[in-house]
Amino acid sequence: MEQFCEGPAVFTYNSPNPHLGGVTQGGYSESLVVDEAFALRLQNRLDPAGAAPLLCAGITTYSPLRRWNVRRGQKVGVVGLGGLGHMAIKLASAFGARVVVFTTSTSKVDDAVRLGASEVVMSRDGTAVQKHQGSFDYVLDTVSAPHDVNALLALLKRNATLVGAPGSPHAVNATSLIHGRRSLAGSLIGGIRETQRMLDFCADRGITADVEEIPIQRINEAFDRVVRGDVKYRFVIDMSSLRKSA
Amino acid sequence: MEQFCEGPAVFTYNSPNPHLGGVTQGGYSESLVVDEAFALRLQNRLDPAGAAPLLCAGITTYSPLRRWNVRRGQKVGVVGLGGLGHMAIKLASAFGARVVVFTTSTSKVDDAVRLGASEVVMSRDGTAVQKHQGSFDYVLDTVSAPHDVNALLALLKRNATLVGAPGSPHAVNATSLIHGRRSLAGSLIGGIRETQRMLDFCADRGITADVEEIPIQRINEAFDRVVRGDVKYRFVIDMSSLRKSA
Repeated sequence: MEQFCEGPAVFTYNSPNPHLGGVTQGGYSESLVVDEAFALRLQNRLDPAGAAPLLCAGITTYSPLRRWNVRRGQKVGVVGLGGLGHMAIKLASAFGARVVVFTTSTSKVDDAVRLGASEVVMSRDGTAVQKHQGSFDYVLDTVSAPHDVNALLALLKRNATLVGAPGSPHAVNATSLIHGRRSLAGSLIGGIRETQRMLDFCADRGITADVEEIPIQRINEAFDRVVRGDVKYRFVIDMSSLRKSA
Repeated sequence: MEQFCEGPAVFTYNSPNPHLGGVTQGGYSESLVVDEAFALRLQNRLDPAGAAPLLCAGITTYSPLRRWNVRRGQKVGVVGLGGLGHMAIKLASAFGARVVVFTTSTSKVDDAVRLGASEVVMSRDGTAVQKHQGSFDYVLDTVSAPHDVNALLALLKRNATLVGAPGSPHAVNATSLIHGRRSLAGSLIGGIRETQRMLDFCADRGITADVEEIPIQRINEAFDRVVRGDVKYRFVIDMSSLRKSA
């Protein structure tokens, strides 16, 4: 539960460092020193490049799926197919749920199915969305751009929960929540113990993120492509390339 | 769970009646015929006038307090002190919780304490509200006028829930939910079985609503006073007065 620390948080990049003074320097280096309480074990059978995004996109989706007990026999919605969405599909499928993906992009249908989705719905097709109304045990909304959260709440069964963290305020209609006694909840990455459990689960099931590996010299190009949404589904920097630029 | 019926609902007043044709006629009469599945037992020791609003304000607050398992040792917020709020205070106190009331009206402080509140906070006093940040196990928001739900979400402990049903869309900030993994949920009156449990609980504890009894001849005056918020806390019509106007 370190992520919910109520004291001032120390972030990884350029954050005031109360222990050593100065600011934190991030992790782009050949080695770094870390308190053992914050070290994680990575099993050998996990490809390090594919495992890297598990520490962010992986745990950010694993934690809410586990907390709301997503399991076999359930129908689960994943909204958005980016870095978080593609991990949510893999993990919810691995937990045994039937996964339906909501996306605005027809070009992502094949990929969603390859990643484990049973069905893909075009979010902007009102009729297609309507067909699924009141049928989901759980919906994980990974879209940060503004969108209508009420249409997604309407997908939920009675007593079910939508977890999401859009960047802009939700305009939530009261009726979206009171009919069917639905909940809208947030979730924030995951703690160290749960992250270790997630890594071990992924190692057992052979789950990694889909990544594109780059040398650090291509970081600016990769940044521009992230801004354009042109990445499947995470860039990973091969840190051995750091030596070449030194 | 009748209140969550997915078929077309039949309301009490002027609602198309699929069983008998025409429209429903409400309950303002000396007697009425009801399907036994929708009849409730009212124990003799409950004053009928004080018990009448239990069927609406009572069950509407009892149901969410029970569903989110409000209990002894918890700190519970009740926002707004009207018909629903005054029942929420009585019931949450009866469940053993320490109740803090949030109101915009200094004139309601004494009443809140009389009804069972341990503390009363002026909702518009930012500093007073701030003092309670992150300290509530549960908050029940009974205010239907537009107000800032994010300030109320910030009152919640980690993993806690705010239940409310404001009339206008909530502008919910994502950060209000993700920090502390909080939930915003809705609730809708209660089913017949739970309403019976509530009535029996209230009879055991001697809980009734605070009411002002009127003859039906004063209904228009009472309506105007409800609109002005001038009622403590529900009007109840004495149906024996109906005969006089006949």
